[in-house]
Amino acid sequence: MTNVNSISELLKSFELYMAKVRWDRQPVELYDPVSYILSIGGKRLRPMSLLYLTKILDGNMDKAMHAAYGIELFHNFSLVHDDIMDASEKRRSFDTVHVKYGQNEAILSGDLMLIESISFIQKAQEGNFQSNLLNLFLTTAREVCEGQSLDMSFEKKMEISLSEYIEMIRLKTAVLLACCFEMAAKLSNRMDLAGTFYDLGIQIGLAFQLEDDWLDLYSENSDFGKVRGGDILRAKKSALILELCESMNIQGRNDFLKNYMLIKDPVLRLNTVTSLLNEYKIKEKLKQRISEYKLKAHLLLSALTLSPAQKLELENWMQLILERRH
Amino acid sequence: MTNVNSISELLKSFELYMAKVRWDRQPVELYDPVSYILSIGGKRLRPMSLLYLTKILDGNMDKAMHAAYGIELFHNFSLVHDDIMDASEKRRSFDTVHVKYGQNEAILSGDLMLIESISFIQKAQEGNFQSNLLNLFLTTAREVCEGQSLDMSFEKKMEISLSEYIEMIRLKTAVLLACCFEMAAKLSNRMDLAGTFYDLGIQIGLAFQLEDDWLDLYSENSDFGKVRGGDILRAKKSALILELCESMNIQGRNDFLKNYMLIKDPVLRLNTVTSLLNEYKIKEKLKQRISEYKLKAHLLLSALTLSPAQKLELENWMQLILERRH
Repeated sequence: MTNVNSISELLKSFELYMAKVRWDRQPVELYDPVSYILSIGGKRLRPMSLLYLTKILDGNMDKAMHAAYGIELFHNFSLVHDDIMDASEKRRSFDTVHVKYGQNEAILSGDLMLIESISFIQKAQEGNFQSNLLNLFLTTAREVCEGQSLDMSFEKKMEISLSEYIEMIRLKTAVLLACCFEMAAKLSNRMDLAGTFYDLGIQIGLAFQLEDDWLDLYSENSDFGKVRGGDILRAKKSALILELCESMNIQGRNDFLKNYMLIKDPVLRLNTVTSLLNEYKIKEKLKQRISEYKLKAHLLLSALTLSPAQKLELENWMQLILERRH
Repeated sequence: MTNVNSISELLKSFELYMAKVRWDRQPVELYDPVSYILSIGGKRLRPMSLLYLTKILDGNMDKAMHAAYGIELFHNFSLVHDDIMDASEKRRSFDTVHVKYGQNEAILSGDLMLIESISFIQKAQEGNFQSNLLNLFLTTAREVCEGQSLDMSFEKKMEISLSEYIEMIRLKTAVLLACCFEMAAKLSNRMDLAGTFYDLGIQIGLAFQLEDDWLDLYSENSDFGKVRGGDILRAKKSALILELCESMNIQGRNDFLKNYMLIKDPVLRLNTVTSLLNEYKIKEKLKQRISEYKLKAHLLLSALTLSPAQKLELENWMQLILERRH
């Protein structure tokens, strides 16, 4: 059993650290949006992974705090700019930054958050240049941009393969979690673990994101907070749709893509697609695929040079991420 | 006399370095705009300052190349995002990135350029952590965002003081040149010069930008490439306008601001304002103010611990920047 107390203690420490970083600076037009986006919550999944893993490995918690804050700032920068690009009006049921403050302010405050995120990573690296936290972070940041670029271009493309989609979510989502995992190893002077920790983060990140797509339709939890089938209602080519395409022959796939895209009535589209998903057993197939990523993570973990207690804590943390109970 | 040959050689080396950095990567939607904006020219004023000053000081030219490229990339990132915010359609008489590739692509490619610019600065810093190039750069980058934020908010404000305006151009323009000057000192292991070099860059940057405003109306060179009085035609509150406001009493200033803003016909506005500028001798007053910044730069320079030859080369370079002959 993961120590739930120690996790909530850690979250408290992080929230305390966050509260100490002041954004009430001049010009307010630039800095207010930063306070705002950071204040509307979020699960702090990435910084908490970095912090908890560093704790498990008995690493440098002070440095980890700086790095975790940098990661959270970067994540929020990407949300602010992505929301402009996707023309999203709500984020965690609050107005998005560009809706509340204007588009120009959202672009510029996003730029500032990106710059400041690097300052915090730099702070975490100070005096420990071998760890190369900054290079890892910059590579990750570039990949996140590549992922967002692919995501945007997929919207305009008729046909995408599941493996292209998985590469996109690897870049857009998984690499940042993997970066947190690797940073935890490095901040604990466990360079021997860095590579495997990164890979672990990738597997968990992919499983997480694919499960997100799966839950869109098959969540049993009404608290999941989203409209059931929202992806299909918005004609998004999610993993469910792409898994379905992979299961069909070329003729069937072409027919489906054309029909799926052409049904104007969202509810009718949802019903049609749902029956096809049932017919091809996509619920089970995608679940199986997700399990394979989890299994890969489990195998990677078992091979690590860690104490049984550490392995258990790590395993439980990964479980927590995937179960979204934090 | 500055060695014109050596400057053009240096520019050639820099262009060669630039050509070697490949942006023909995937996804093309993300990377093509980077090649594009870098290919449409520009005076390379900032990187060339960094390179030439490092050369004068006999510093590390390899590292200076990385830093110069990072600076140029950052400068172009800021142009791409500023052009979105200002809704500019042309840049150096080419389509702006958001016009050519779309707004979302311009936001995202700008983000990428910002990230990559930091990678190049990081490369320049490698193995020389005492120089703190990265902290200098991150502070500068933050200030450039602050300057752009002030610039945008000034457009909505009725009354701005000349000193507020100068603070805005210090942040938006001068600090990046100052950063180049300081980096040259640091890359030459002349930490003793770093602070004064930074100050020199600020004075030159301010003189340069104020002169830009002055030239808008009083340029004798028809090749200056802009419509004469463009700032006034666009009702921009430039240094000329603000110098005029400072010269008037409160009543006169209020009348002027109201009337200046209210004349709908741009040509009539230009004529009205020009007579007022003549009446108050603003051409001479602003020129005088610019001379003071140049004088301050000259005094800073004379006090530096440099050989007479180095001082002469530095003086000539600053002259070149201000005369825009490069």
